[in-house]
Amino acid sequence: MGGISGTKAEGADSIVVSGGYEDDEDSGDELIYTGAGGNDPDSGKQIADQTLDQPGNAGLATSQLEGLPVRVVRGANGDPSFSPTAGYRYDGLYRVADHWSKVGKSGHRIWRYKLVRLSPQEAAPYVPDVNLPPGEATPQTTSGVVTRIVRSTAVSQAVKKLYNDYCQVCDVQLEAPGGSLAEGAHIRALGKPHLGPDVSENVLCLCPNHHSLFDEGGIYLTDDFKVHDYRGQVVGPLYRHSKHAIGLEHMRYHRGLWGH
Amino acid sequence: MGGISGTKAEGADSIVVSGGYEDDEDSGDELIYTGAGGNDPDSGKQIADQTLDQPGNAGLATSQLEGLPVRVVRGANGDPSFSPTAGYRYDGLYRVADHWSKVGKSGHRIWRYKLVRLSPQEAAPYVPDVNLPPGEATPQTTSGVVTRIVRSTAVSQAVKKLYNDYCQVCDVQLEAPGGSLAEGAHIRALGKPHLGPDVSENVLCLCPNHHSLFDEGGIYLTDDFKVHDYRGQVVGPLYRHSKHAIGLEHMRYHRGLWGH
Repeated sequence: MGGISGTKAEGADSIVVSGGYEDDEDSGDELIYTGAGGNDPDSGKQIADQTLDQPGNAGLATSQLEGLPVRVVRGANGDPSFSPTAGYRYDGLYRVADHWSKVGKSGHRIWRYKLVRLSPQEAAPYVPDVNLPPGEATPQTTSGVVTRIVRSTAVSQAVKKLYNDYCQVCDVQLEAPGGSLAEGAHIRALGKPHLGPDVSENVLCLCPNHHSLFDEGGIYLTDDFKVHDYRGQVVGPLYRHSKHAIGLEHMRYHRGLWGH
Repeated sequence: MGGISGTKAEGADSIVVSGGYEDDEDSGDELIYTGAGGNDPDSGKQIADQTLDQPGNAGLATSQLEGLPVRVVRGANGDPSFSPTAGYRYDGLYRVADHWSKVGKSGHRIWRYKLVRLSPQEAAPYVPDVNLPPGEATPQTTSGVVTRIVRSTAVSQAVKKLYNDYCQVCDVQLEAPGGSLAEGAHIRALGKPHLGPDVSENVLCLCPNHHSLFDEGGIYLTDDFKVHDYRGQVVGPLYRHSKHAIGLEHMRYHRGLWGH
């Protein structure tokens, strides 16, 4: 019954949430959605691993990376708090905020997607500011879907200062007139469902490229502090300051998300 | 009288908005603020160029790059709509959203800063999700100051597709399990005060590093489509697809922001 309509090239245009997957978690405006494949339609149990090659799964990843909205349809067999009593209901536009894998309740690897309902502003078609009359008192703010937000915390500021904004993967410091550019990257992400701690053991100083790659599973770390690309090839060492203890448990959590 | 309290290392902790600069533009929740230096206190006119080396100016740039909030104090001589009738008033926390330079009304280069009032959520001290009781119905969402937001538009998606996510500056394609990672970068920014158009002539396909550098003036483009670092050294050519016309006027606008 394939709940995802989409392809790797175009992204996923819609999903159906109907309680068919034992690992789904619906809280209305946020949704942890299980990918397609390996599922026994009679029991709802996983009987084989899911892969990111499956077109719907690949499509949801594309939707995240391209910032494309996804239509969510809920069916009567889903979580009773958020589902229609009968049939199917169109439930609005969501963005794909995150994707990762884990070994699910039945012992098989599943892919998971965090979807977040778009605010009315985000869901509106893109209106460039330039079309507004100049001097408008309350101009409509920019819309379009956010694909990447980097937040700063006191801990990430301290870690960046320790490395003087040199990336711990490529040892490059990006220079701009106002100062050097680096990002504090949480190894185990702060938000739901990962709930990583905001402590220096869980933060790396990375350039934006290696931060993006790390967050999307393009690179991961092994316990010997080697950096690997997602095919498993060693890219190089992780540069570490003597005052910066890095939590192995956070690195293990991160690699688990990508099946390593 | 130096309206900015701060240093390059620590950022700016507060600014005073008191109508002392002819190029300031106050709209309450947003503020275009002129940097310090080169100002005649008697006339309020610029009599010399400002530089980013001045400690307050450098501090505001650091506040932006590090995501540090700035306290805004308004004085009685500022815009009457938003200023106290007498004396000075503490007016809350703002983030520095942007900085750039231009030749001001008096013919001298000034540095400008766009400040945006923090929402109560953003201004709250950072509370990691992990300290909240599990299952909290409406958990406090992550706070901390946003330092970088990348939005996706239909135009930027199309430009990225044309280049297959290869960066037009470094010709690198970042690979992750879910697909390749690139960003659509507006040459003349969309938001106020730049008001660039959302058209393909104004969009580049860049890796996150070169997008960050471009936005912060670390690189700029000359009319011969060469990429320069901010000291003026040629870094290399800008890779261009035959179907992608790039607007010289947008490139010129961008370089003007950084004094080139």
